[in-house]
Formats: sequence, structure tokens, C-alpha cells
Amino acid sequence: MLRLSTEKFKTMANFENITIIGVGLIGGSIGLALKKRPSAHKVIGVFHRRVTLKKALKHKAVDIGVMDITSAVRDADLVVLASPVHLIPELAAKVAKSAKPGTIVTDVGSTKEWIVSKIEKLFEASAGVHFVGSHPMAGSEHAGVESASEDLFEGSPCIVTKTRRTNSVAFKKVVKFWKSLGLNVKIMTPREHDRTVSLISHLPHAVAFALTGAVTGKEMECAAEGFRDTTRVASSDPELWADIFLTNRKAILTAGASFNKQFARLLRAIAKGDRCATVKILKNSKSKRDKYLHAK
Amino acid sequence: MLRLSTEKFKTMANFENITIIGVGLIGGSIGLALKKRPSAHKVIGVFHRRVTLKKALKHKAVDIGVMDITSAVRDADLVVLASPVHLIPELAAKVAKSAKPGTIVTDVGSTKEWIVSKIEKLFEASAGVHFVGSHPMAGSEHAGVESASEDLFEGSPCIVTKTRRTNSVAFKKVVKFWKSLGLNVKIMTPREHDRTVSLISHLPHAVAFALTGAVTGKEMECAAEGFRDTTRVASSDPELWADIFLTNRKAILTAGASFNKQFARLLRAIAKGDRCATVKILKNSKSKRDKYLHAK
Repeated sequence: MLRLSTEKFKTMANFENITIIGVGLIGGSIGLALKKRPSAHKVIGVFHRRVTLKKALKHKAVDIGVMDITSAVRDADLVVLASPVHLIPELAAKVAKSAKPGTIVTDVGSTKEWIVSKIEKLFEASAGVHFVGSHPMAGSEHAGVESASEDLFEGSPCIVTKTRRTNSVAFKKVVKFWKSLGLNVKIMTPREHDRTVSLISHLPHAVAFALTGAVTGKEMECAAEGFRDTTRVASSDPELWADIFLTNRKAILTAGASFNKQFARLLRAIAKGDRCATVKILKNSKSKRDKYLHAK
Repeated sequence: MLRLSTEKFKTMANFENITIIGVGLIGGSIGLALKKRPSAHKVIGVFHRRVTLKKALKHKAVDIGVMDITSAVRDADLVVLASPVHLIPELAAKVAKSAKPGTIVTDVGSTKEWIVSKIEKLFEASAGVHFVGSHPMAGSEHAGVESASEDLFEGSPCIVTKTRRTNSVAFKKVVKFWKSLGLNVKIMTPREHDRTVSLISHLPHAVAFALTGAVTGKEMECAAEGFRDTTRVASSDPELWADIFLTNRKAILTAGASFNKQFARLLRAIAKGDRCATVKILKNSKSKRDKYLHAK
């Protein structure tokens, strides 16, 4: 255990100055999780709106809050891009202009191929600033720094992406960073990430939005826990999720087609009144879910 | 508040002897909720298997456990049929043979037209034994009396059905019975029930089973809370749910078609890269859900 603690300390010490751009639910939870750990880093938050800056300081999610990227990244060892997905590449471009050589940049975006390919292209010209794509898979249907929590990431999966262009030192440091915050790191290419996440995250969101769309408010008043849980993520931010869907279109359409095939098969068995086929489909899903997700 | 308590007491006193046939999650929770309340009734549980009988007595879900329906319903004022859906009509037939005139019979089945039409036909010849269809909408993906809880029903909806043949005195007593257990009663015809519940309960279950079917175990290992919640009910009992689906076929197929329409519309907007249409669909679902389901 001592070994792990030392390792953690080293990792944190490597990133003495950490700048988080976009301090909402995810950025704020990173700030809180960093500040929970005993280390010597300074956490700067970069904000788009002054009202969020005040909230984040009140919530103690960052040490310093600023509105200007240039000054915030000048001394940064690590920059975390934690804005909505569609803003990440343009924020990365601004970071590249002001960061010192050796700065490592990562992000928390829910799609990776779109983001990583854009930023890698951008960073080709920026000597010594390295980008490693990340996706810490924790969240909530509630947005904003006021919902941030130091424990949001504890035990959650974090996919860190690797490409031909990924700098291996930066990659190792980013992996250690997420591990030190309690996340369970998995390594994938951006494409593998997008395919996997389209199935386990984007598809459930799309399904939950459609399910909610199919039911009227009056009918919903009779709903019990089953409906509530199945549609929980349909209370997520529409703008944010539209961008996630649109930056991972191809994988989501493929995932949607897989779902449609399964759903049609089940409806067909029900339509035929085929109890044996119906039970078989349900058993297959239940046993898979029970095996891989355990009980809460 | 005194008025309510007296009313509750009267209701309970009207049903001095209550027999629950099938003491699993739902039947067991009814027993526990009854025993939590101060009243003079005796609760008899009827079991199919001796091992469940022992569990239920250990769990204190019933006062007396028996294996034989005839003796258990002879003195009953209220009989609650709490078995899996497909067994309810045949159990009702057995009850009709042994119950005294004036006995009221209700059930907890998740489909109503199939059950109510069968039992009303059966009970035509049984002078003075009245059936009122009910569906307390609480549950869990965990089955069995060991998961039963005295609070399972607190604040949950309970649909009580009314038809041309429903005895109005029996109907009022059954409504009062569920209210006294803390449920929020809604009155519908069996057909209205089946249509509503196909959308808010059966459809989410079918969707969750299909969603789980579309994802491999390996992919599931990266899943976060969103996937876990959206698919929670896919861990429900396959045999039980196959029977619910098959006894409410028509309504589920219609609900499935409504879902398909919504889902296809969302995928179409994503495929086109139409941000405006995508945001509109997501906003519509989010605002409806937030309005009618509030936050937990």
C-alpha cells in the first residue's frame, strides 16, 4: 500500500499546476477530488461566465477562478478540457497557443474520434504540448458545479485513448492521473472507445429519450420505479447530448440498429405468443446483466 | 387526521381475515404492511412450496402459513391473489369453490383485461363472491419474500379496475384497502389499465431487455450509472415477465410501435446531422419527464 501511495504522490507532484477549463459537474468534481488528496498542486479553473466562477469558488472546486485561458494555462503542467464536447477542439487550439513546452492536455469528452483527430492535427505544430484523449465515465442527469462531488469518480471506468501519434510519456502520466483520482482506467483507440460507448452510454440515452417521448404526461403520473429508472438519463441536458450524438453519429446509428434488431426479435416472439422464445430472450439478457453488472 | 385513522381502522376491521395466495415480493410486502398497522386482522398465507412458507414465517410476513387453498379461504373476508399473472385465473376458480358468500377477491396482476374477463366469467355462478381487479405498481428486480418490505407500497400508484360487472360495495372496500396500505389509487377500466401500463411499465421492461441484449458482457464492463439504471429492470424474472408480455400482447405491440416511431425519428435527426431537430426531440422528452416525474 505504501508503494501505491508514493506512486500517487509522485503522479500528483508531476502535475503541480493543474488547469481545468469548464468547471461544471465533471470539471468541478475533478477539482474537488484533487483537493481531497494530499498533494502540492494548485488548481486553476477557467470559466465562461462569472456567475459559475463564483459558484465554483463557493463550492471550493478550484483554488483560483479566471475568465481568461491565456493566463490560466501559461504555467500549467496539466490542462483538463472539461467543456461540452463541441467546444473541446477550439479550446485546445487556444491552449496550444499559450501553454509552455511539456504541458500535457487531456479532456473528458464523451466522443473521442472526432475530438482526438481534430486536436492531434492542431497539436502537430505545437512543439512539446501533448494531447491524450480521456473519458471519465461518471456523471449525472444533473448539470453544474453545484452537483459536483469529490466522490463522483470513485470506482468509475475511465477510457484513455491511444493512437499512433500519442506521446507515451504523456499517456502514462494521464493514466496515472485518472488512477490517482480513483478511476478504473481502460485503454482503447478512439474508434474502439466510440463504438463501445455508443452502446453502453449513447444508446441508453437515445432509448431513454425515445421512451419518454412515447408516453404522455398523464400516463407518466402512474409510473413506478421501473419507468423512473429506465428514463432517468432522459432528464440530461439536451444541448450537451445533441452534440454527443452528432459527434458520434456513425457509431450511434450502428448501435441503434443493433438495438432495433433485438427489440424487433422480442416483439416478434410476443406477437406470435411464443412463450419459449420470449423466455429465452429475457433469460439471455438477465443472465448477462446479472453476471457483468452484479447487484448494486 | 383522526378522521383518517378511524376510517383506516374501519377498513381494516371490515377485513378481519385476510388470505394472501402467493407470498413473494408483492404478497409478502402486503403481509408486512398489514402487520405494521394497528388492527385486528389475521393474515393467512397460502404457499406452493414449503421452503417459501418457512421463509415467510421467519420474515414474519404472515401470521399463519398453509399449503391448502380450501382451508385458507374458508373464513376469509378478503383474498388477495398475488401469484404470477398466468396462475391468477385458475387460483380464483379454486377460491370461488371454497369461499363463503360475501368474500371479496382481488389480485395484484400486471395485466388486467385478460385476468378480469376470465375471473368475472368464473364468478358469475359464485353467489356473493366478488372480484375486483387491482395492480399495485411497486416492485423490484429482486423476487421472493426475502426482498419483501413493509414500505414497498408507500406512495406508489395502485390501479383498481371497474367494469359493468364490478360490485360497487366490493369496489369501494378494495379501494379503501389499498389506500390504507399507503397506495395512491387510480381507477380505470381493465383496457385503460392495460394500455397505460403497457407504456409505463411493460414497454420500459421490453426496452431494457432489448438494450441489454444489444451489448456484450465485455462492453458492459465499461458501463457507468446510466446503463445500469436504464437496464435495471432487465434483471427481473424472465418467466414472470414473459407471462406479463404474453397476457397483454396487443397493448405491448402498440406501445412498441409508438416507441419505434420516436426512436426512428431521433436516429433520423442524428443521421441527418440536424442539431436543431435533435435538440428539439431531447428537450421535449426532458421537459416532460422533469414536469411529471420531478426529481427523486
